[in-house]
Amino acid sequence: MGVNSNRVEALSSHHHACFETTLDIQLPNNPSPIEIHHVCLPPKRTTLQKLKQRLSDIFFYDNPLHRFHNQTWLKKFVLALEFFFPVFQWGPTYSLKLLRSDLISGLTIASLAIPQGISYAKLANLPPIIGLYSSFVPPLIYSILGSSKHLAVGPVSIASLVMGTMLSEVVSPTEEPILYLKLAFTSTFFAGVFQAALGFLRLGFVIDFLSKATLIGFMAGAAVIVSLQQLKGLLGMVHFTNQMQIIPVLSSVLKYRHEWAWQTIVMGFCFLFFLLSARQISAKKPKLFWLSAAAPLTSVILSTVIVFAIKPNSRQIPIIGYLPKGLNPPSTNMLYFHGSHLALAIKTGIVSGILALTEGIAVGRTFATLNNYQVDGNKEMMAIGLMNMAGSCSSCYVTTGSFSRSAVNYNAGAQTAISNIVMATAVLITLLFLMPLFHYTPTVILGCIIITAVIGLIDYQAAFRLWKVDKIDFLACVCSFFGVLFVSVPLGLAISVGISVFKILLHVTRPNTIVLGNIPGTQIFQSIGRYREAIRIPSFLILSIESPIYFANSTYLQERILRWIREEEDRVKANNESMIKCVILDTSAVTAIDTSGIELLGELRKMLERMSLHLVLANPAGNVMEKLHQSQALESFGSQGLYMTVGEAIADISSSWKAQP
Amino acid sequence: MGVNSNRVEALSSHHHACFETTLDIQLPNNPSPIEIHHVCLPPKRTTLQKLKQRLSDIFFYDNPLHRFHNQTWLKKFVLALEFFFPVFQWGPTYSLKLLRSDLISGLTIASLAIPQGISYAKLANLPPIIGLYSSFVPPLIYSILGSSKHLAVGPVSIASLVMGTMLSEVVSPTEEPILYLKLAFTSTFFAGVFQAALGFLRLGFVIDFLSKATLIGFMAGAAVIVSLQQLKGLLGMVHFTNQMQIIPVLSSVLKYRHEWAWQTIVMGFCFLFFLLSARQISAKKPKLFWLSAAAPLTSVILSTVIVFAIKPNSRQIPIIGYLPKGLNPPSTNMLYFHGSHLALAIKTGIVSGILALTEGIAVGRTFATLNNYQVDGNKEMMAIGLMNMAGSCSSCYVTTGSFSRSAVNYNAGAQTAISNIVMATAVLITLLFLMPLFHYTPTVILGCIIITAVIGLIDYQAAFRLWKVDKIDFLACVCSFFGVLFVSVPLGLAISVGISVFKILLHVTRPNTIVLGNIPGTQIFQSIGRYREAIRIPSFLILSIESPIYFANSTYLQERILRWIREEEDRVKANNESMIKCVILDTSAVTAIDTSGIELLGELRKMLERMSLHLVLANPAGNVMEKLHQSQALESFGSQGLYMTVGEAIADISSSWKAQP
Repeated sequence: MGVNSNRVEALSSHHHACFETTLDIQLPNNPSPIEIHHVCLPPKRTTLQKLKQRLSDIFFYDNPLHRFHNQTWLKKFVLALEFFFPVFQWGPTYSLKLLRSDLISGLTIASLAIPQGISYAKLANLPPIIGLYSSFVPPLIYSILGSSKHLAVGPVSIASLVMGTMLSEVVSPTEEPILYLKLAFTSTFFAGVFQAALGFLRLGFVIDFLSKATLIGFMAGAAVIVSLQQLKGLLGMVHFTNQMQIIPVLSSVLKYRHEWAWQTIVMGFCFLFFLLSARQISAKKPKLFWLSAAAPLTSVILSTVIVFAIKPNSRQIPIIGYLPKGLNPPSTNMLYFHGSHLALAIKTGIVSGILALTEGIAVGRTFATLNNYQVDGNKEMMAIGLMNMAGSCSSCYVTTGSFSRSAVNYNAGAQTAISNIVMATAVLITLLFLMPLFHYTPTVILGCIIITAVIGLIDYQAAFRLWKVDKIDFLACVCSFFGVLFVSVPLGLAISVGISVFKILLHVTRPNTIVLGNIPGTQIFQSIGRYREAIRIPSFLILSIESPIYFANSTYLQERILRWIREEEDRVKANNESMIKCVILDTSAVTAIDTSGIELLGELRKMLERMSLHLVLANPAGNVMEKLHQSQALESFGSQGLYMTVGEAIADISSSWKAQP
Repeated sequence: MGVNSNRVEALSSHHHACFETTLDIQLPNNPSPIEIHHVCLPPKRTTLQKLKQRLSDIFFYDNPLHRFHNQTWLKKFVLALEFFFPVFQWGPTYSLKLLRSDLISGLTIASLAIPQGISYAKLANLPPIIGLYSSFVPPLIYSILGSSKHLAVGPVSIASLVMGTMLSEVVSPTEEPILYLKLAFTSTFFAGVFQAALGFLRLGFVIDFLSKATLIGFMAGAAVIVSLQQLKGLLGMVHFTNQMQIIPVLSSVLKYRHEWAWQTIVMGFCFLFFLLSARQISAKKPKLFWLSAAAPLTSVILSTVIVFAIKPNSRQIPIIGYLPKGLNPPSTNMLYFHGSHLALAIKTGIVSGILALTEGIAVGRTFATLNNYQVDGNKEMMAIGLMNMAGSCSSCYVTTGSFSRSAVNYNAGAQTAISNIVMATAVLITLLFLMPLFHYTPTVILGCIIITAVIGLIDYQAAFRLWKVDKIDFLACVCSFFGVLFVSVPLGLAISVGISVFKILLHVTRPNTIVLGNIPGTQIFQSIGRYREAIRIPSFLILSIESPIYFANSTYLQERILRWIREEEDRVKANNESMIKCVILDTSAVTAIDTSGIELLGELRKMLERMSLHLVLANPAGNVMEKLHQSQALESFGSQGLYMTVGEAIADISSSWKAQP
C-alpha cells in the first residue's frame, strides 16, 4: 500500500526534494481517492545563516535600505541625503501654493502653542519662559529631520506632568529652582539620548509594549491628575500639597478652603466655560477648528486686559509677572552629569522620553495614514531624540509631537514641516518683542488652558469599546487609570504593561485545545464545538493545539490532552461507538517548539503507546520540523507518525487498518 | 453566483446554524467544483460563562474532581479521603511481599540519608544534627500525604546551598548561631507556606517557568559552587571567604595556602577517589546501585575508625565532635515573625521553597512516568508544603524529594511510601542511640560526600543537546550557569527565567510570515519556501501569519505585510506575470487577537483598498471571529472578505472576477 514510502523526508539525507506518490486510499467520508504527501523539512541552513535571517527579521524587517538596491553611487548619495534629512525629499518641489497653506496653519498653531507652552511649563514646575523656548528650537530641528508632514512639535501635557511629578518628588522647584532646572535639562538630554538610541538600535518595538488599551487608561488618569492640580490656580489657593495622587490633592483643597478667592474663581470658571464651549463647538463641526485654536490666545489677551484694567483691585489675582525678553540662552553648562541626583535625572529622562516618543510616533502615524504616506518609526525616533538632545543644550525641556496641535495643524491645511518653521518664527517674534505683554496675564488662565487641553484625553467611549471586545485589555486600561490616580504615574504605567505582558504569557501558558471533526464531503477539519456540520471520525480523536509548545505549557498540554482522551473514551463507551485507536494532533497553530516541547511529544507518544493508542502529528510548521529532526525525535514517530494534513493522516492510517485487520 | 449568501454568519442574528451552498466554482488548479462554506461564530456565551470557562481552563484544567461525578455520598467520602491522604489508596492492599521490598529499599536509602543529611546541614551552615532531624519528621509526613511511591524525602543539596548562601550573606552562622537557626526554621516555614499555597491555589505552573534548560545550567553552576566550598574542608583550611562566587573562593584558597594540612588532604582525596569510583561503577552497571548507596556510610565508618585509632596524632584533622542524643525538639518557639530579618526569611523561604519544589515535582514525575502512574503536581505541592511547615516546627530545615536518593530507592525496589517510614525509623534509631559514634567522624569526609553527590548535577551532554536543538534554550542554560557562578544564585536564576520569558515575547513580537502556494491537484496550501511543488496562484498573494496578533506585533505585522506586497509586486513586474489583485491572510495560526490587532486588520484593509487590493481572511479561529464580530470589524470585510479555507477564498473570488471582468 505504499505506506513505507510515506516516511518522513527527514530520514533521508537528501533534503528538500519531496516527491509524491498517488495512493488509492479513501477518506471515510470522501468518495475520491486522495494523495499522501511528504512532510518536508525547510531548506537546510547553517546556524550563522539562521541567526542572520532572524536578526534581520527582528531589526530590519521593513528592509529600510531597499530603495538603495541597484543604484549608481550618485543616486545612492542623494537617496542617503533624503533618508537622513527628509527635507531634501519635499524641499525641491516646494511651491508658493504650499507655502500659503503652511503659513496659515503655522500661524494657527502658533496662537495655540504660545499659551500652551507657558501653561505646560508651569505643569512641569518650570518657569513659563522655558515653555516658549521649547516651542522655538525643537520645531526647527524637527522640520529638517522629521518625516511627518503634520506633526506640530513642542511641549506636551503628559511628558510635562511626568517630568514635573518625578523631579519634584525629590527636589523642590520653589526651594532649589536652579538645581531643579538643571535636572530638567539633564532629564531632557537623557530622554533625547534614549529616544535616539532606540531609533538607532532599531528597538522601536519597545514603545509597542505601551498598548493602546494601556494608554487610554493612562492618559485618562493623567488628565484627571493634571486637572486636579489646576484647582490650586483655579481656586486662587496659596498652600497646596506637593503630591499628585487624587486623595492628598482633594484633602488639601478642602483643608485650605479658607484660602479660596472669589475673584479668581469667578474669572477662572468664566474663561474655562468659554474655552470648553469653543472646544465643544469645534469638536462637533470640524470646519470651525479655528474656534478652539484661537480661544486660548483670545482668553490670554482678554484676561490680561481685564487684569490690567482693574490693576489696583486685582491684588487677589496672581499674575505671571516679569518675563525676560530674548532668545533661548545656551544651557550646556546646566547639564548635570555627576552627583547624587544623576540617577533621578536618567530615570525621569527615560520615563518621560518613552511617553513623549509614544505620543509623537502615534500622532505621526495617525496623520500619515490619513494622508496615505508612511512614517518610519525608527527614523522618527532618531529625529525626536536628536531634537531633544539639541533642546537640552538650548534651555528647552522635553518636547514631542502634540496630538491637539497636530490635529489643528492638519485641519488648518498644513502641507509640510514648513508650518513648524512658521510657528517657530512666530514664537521667535514673541520672545524678542512681546514678552512684557504677558506681565499681567493671570495664572488662573493657564490652568483653564491646561484643563481644556487635557480633558480631551479622557476617552470613555474607547474604554467602553475595550470592555465590549476584550476584557483583559479593559483590565489593563482600568489598572493603568487607577494606578496613575492612586499610586503614582510610573507605577501605574508599569502595572498595566505588566498586565499586557501577562496576557501574552497566559495565552502561551494555558493554550486552547480543540476537538476537530470533518466537514462532510471535504478535506476540511474544523472545531466540533463551532461547526454543527463537523462530524467525528470513528476511532480517531483529532486535537488542534493553538499555541507554540514551550516549557511554560508542556506540563499543561500533557495533562489536558490526556483529559481529552479520557473524556472521549468515556463518551465513546457511553454511546457504544468504536474505541479510539489513533490521536491526531493538528499542529498548524504550533508555530514554535523548544526542548521541553519536544520532550513532551516524545513522552506523550510513549504514554499513548502504553494505552495502545497511535499518536500522529499533522501539518507541523517548518521550524518545528527542523527541531524535531535535530533532536532525533522524528525517527521515533516512524513512518505513520507525521502527515501534511489531517485528512491524509486519516486516509492513510485507516487504509492500513483495513489492510491489516 | 450565490456570492451574497456567503455572508458572514455573524451578520445574521441566528448563531450557530451554518448551512451550506454548493457552488459551481473551480479552483484554478483543481478540476472539480468546490463548495463554499460559511465561517461560523462560536456558540454565544455570556461574559460570565466565558470567564467561568477560562478560569476552569486555567486552574482546573485536569478536572481533578472527575472521579467524584455520579457517586454515592459514602463513595464520595472514601474518594475524598483517598484524595487528601493517598495512603488510603494503597494502604488497604498492602502486603508482606511489598513490605519486604520496602524494607530493603528503606534501609538502603537510610544508609545514604544519614551521612548526606549531616553533610547537607553543613552546606546550609547548620549544626549536623539538624540534617538528621530533617531526615526523620518530613519523610513520615510525606508518606501519609504524598502521592509518589518512589520519592525519598530529606534535605537536598541545592535547597541547602541556597538557604545557606542567602542567610549567611546577612547573618553570620558562627557569630550569631541562634539567630541563624531561627531564620533557617522561619525560612523553612515560609517555604512550606509558599509551596502549600501554590498547590492550594493551583498555581503550580509557576514552577514551569523554571524551564529544563534553565535548570541544567543552574544545577551545574550550583554543583561547581558547592564543590568549591568543600575545598575548605578538603584542604583542612581554617580561614575561608564567606562569599560563594568562584573568584573570591579561589583567591581565598590561594591566599591561605600556608594553612593546607597534608593529613586532611591525603585522607580527603583517598575517600573522594573511593566514593567517585563507587559512583562511576554504579552509573555503568545499574545493578550495582548498592555500591554507590553503601559507599558514603562505609566511608564515614572507615574514616571514623581511622581517626579514632590514631587519636593522639590526629589533632590536625577536624572532627564533628559532640552530638546530642534524642529526638527532634519542638521549634515553634524559634519561629521569627517580626523584626528586621523577617523580609530576609521570607525571601529565602520563597527562593529555596521554589527550588525544592521544582526538584521534588520533577523527581516525582520522572519515576511516576517510568512506572506508569500519575502524580498530581498541585497535590504534591501541598504535600511538600505541609511537610515543610510541620518540619519547621520540629527543628527541621527545608526538605524535598532528593533525586539521587530517589533513584537509589527506585533501584532498590521500593514499592510504596513505606520505604520512607523505614528510612525514618533507621534515622530514629540513629538519633536515639548511635549519635556518640559520629564524635570522631572527620568533617573532611562530609565534603567528599557532598562533592560526590553534586557532581552528578553537571550534565554537559544535556547542555550539548540544547545547543544542537535550540540555541536560545542553550543561551538560557549558559546564562544561568555563569550567573550562578559569577554573580549570585537568585540573580543567575532570575536572569535565565528572564531569557526564557523574553523568548516567548520575542516570538510574539516578531512573528513569522510565510508566503503560501497551492500543491497542485489538492486544496492544500503550504509554504513556497519549504515545498518545491507548491505554486503561486496568479493574481493572489497568500500570507500565513504565525502568531496571535497583539499590541506587541501589530505595527510590525503591518510593515511586514506591506513589504511582502511590495516585493511580490516587484517580482511580478520582473517576470511579466499578472498583477496582484487580492491578498489572502491565512489566519489558521492566529489563535488570538486584541483590540490593537483588530485595528491593524481594519487599517490594513483600508490601505490595501487604496492600492486597489482586496484583503481576505481565511480560517479565523473561534475567538478571533468573536472579537471581530463584537468590534463590528467583520462588517467592513463584507461578503467577500472571510472564508473558511484559502482554497474556497480563491475559488469564490476568482469566479467572481470571471463573472464581472
